[in-house]
Amino acid sequence: MRVIQSLRRLQVWRCRMGQQNPRIGFVPTMGALHEGHLSLMRRARKECDLVVVSIFVNPLQFGPAEDLGRYPRTFQADRKACEQAGVDLIFFPQVKDLYPSTFQTSVVVKQLTQRWEGEIRPTHFQGVTTVVTKLLNLVGPHRAYFGQKDYQQYIVIKQLVEDLSLPVTIIRCPTVREADGLAMSSRNRYLGATERELATVLYRALSAGKKAITDGVRSGKKIQQNMMRLCKKHPELSIDYFTVCHPLTLEPLTRVDREAVLLGALRIGKVRLIDNIFAFLGSA
Amino acid sequence: MRVIQSLRRLQVWRCRMGQQNPRIGFVPTMGALHEGHLSLMRRARKECDLVVVSIFVNPLQFGPAEDLGRYPRTFQADRKACEQAGVDLIFFPQVKDLYPSTFQTSVVVKQLTQRWEGEIRPTHFQGVTTVVTKLLNLVGPHRAYFGQKDYQQYIVIKQLVEDLSLPVTIIRCPTVREADGLAMSSRNRYLGATERELATVLYRALSAGKKAITDGVRSGKKIQQNMMRLCKKHPELSIDYFTVCHPLTLEPLTRVDREAVLLGALRIGKVRLIDNIFAFLGSA
Repeated sequence: MRVIQSLRRLQVWRCRMGQQNPRIGFVPTMGALHEGHLSLMRRARKECDLVVVSIFVNPLQFGPAEDLGRYPRTFQADRKACEQAGVDLIFFPQVKDLYPSTFQTSVVVKQLTQRWEGEIRPTHFQGVTTVVTKLLNLVGPHRAYFGQKDYQQYIVIKQLVEDLSLPVTIIRCPTVREADGLAMSSRNRYLGATERELATVLYRALSAGKKAITDGVRSGKKIQQNMMRLCKKHPELSIDYFTVCHPLTLEPLTRVDREAVLLGALRIGKVRLIDNIFAFLGSA
Repeated sequence: MRVIQSLRRLQVWRCRMGQQNPRIGFVPTMGALHEGHLSLMRRARKECDLVVVSIFVNPLQFGPAEDLGRYPRTFQADRKACEQAGVDLIFFPQVKDLYPSTFQTSVVVKQLTQRWEGEIRPTHFQGVTTVVTKLLNLVGPHRAYFGQKDYQQYIVIKQLVEDLSLPVTIIRCPTVREADGLAMSSRNRYLGATERELATVLYRALSAGKKAITDGVRSGKKIQQNMMRLCKKHPELSIDYFTVCHPLTLEPLTRVDREAVLLGALRIGKVRLIDNIFAFLGSA
């Protein structure tokens, strides 16, 4: 009999107990798949023996005034796209199966969900962390792939996995953009032609913030103003937030003297868009 | 490529993907092991290839005024007892490893934790469900064993496992009792000689409730009064609750016409004791 005190060593032991199971890569999605999702699937395809994609529009992560009802559902196209990306299995559950009437459990990540998206969408992250925990338990993947576009979501899920010791590695993949810089998103299809053109301002604003940092601006406030300036030219836009923050804690930086992540969120009419970019210092 | 919609079938698929791993049985404990714990280990020993016991006094499940500091810690004796019960591995983590300073995630089961223990110990079940989720993720058992003595805890954990689709079967094992009926508990060792004698009233009260049901009493209120009557003879006791309730929802029954569970909790001085018994109808 052995006694183990360290979590790490327990995990190593548990791992050794398993046989050579196939390596499973998992891409959780809400469907309405675009190039961003497909890049996750291709990455998983390269790194794993089996690729599982879930398609589930998760009601728990939508607020009561949000777009759950009109969220795009395009299963036949999604299925074809998965097939072409070499996916082995699509998990496509029904709401009543994932959340039966007796369902009453939530998974809550506290501090990291207070700011930014969490402030504007108060129940959003609890819905995300609950469904992601459940999907990870069901699929049992070795690796799960998330896009950087939802950067706060990625950070929250990393924390969740660490805190609950979920036996999975979370992989962050680069944001995929349209030719004009707009981050790909299932919600982009809500945009009318004029709105679509206007939408590029989000990435341009973030890029302006990054340029300010490269140009030597160090004040968080000034960098933030730099990003907002571009947006304020367009009264049709409403800004939710722009911020320069620490890439792990997501706390706003008063002074930028190492890596930072620039987060932005705005609304064009009824459509809400988010995006982010990293800014590095010193290595340039 | 396959498409699966049903959770059950996904689980079956996931299962088939694994090779013949050893069956792991898991007994989570807070140490201070007694015959109750040992009966769980023996059951696991019979049913599984490997038996894992965790020993961890979980601070999250103690209230600020509770007995975390003086909770008995008897690792050397526990280790010997595990050895004799044929345990393969003890997981004995440190608080700082299970809950590092960045830890910020909770698992919450809502309705089932409102009443009874949850009402008297408001943060207790959140602490239990959080640590149990984490331990199950770390150990990855096929089966986890819980004593009936903490009946509400068992029901809450069943719900947790169902709601989060944790890949484990929860097994309820009978309460182990002293010769005079007192349910075994690590907290019994707090009892002085006079208190120890008095403590038997809890099981006697529950048994009186069960007898009332067997004798044909159907009113939940009357059965409850039957249980309380015995305790009220002893002013040294303070009753937390006695109730007749539904064995799955834990809602109090106004009329007993099927199975019921009788729950009781009381305090003798600083020591808090809980216990429960089933009452069946019709099959007698």
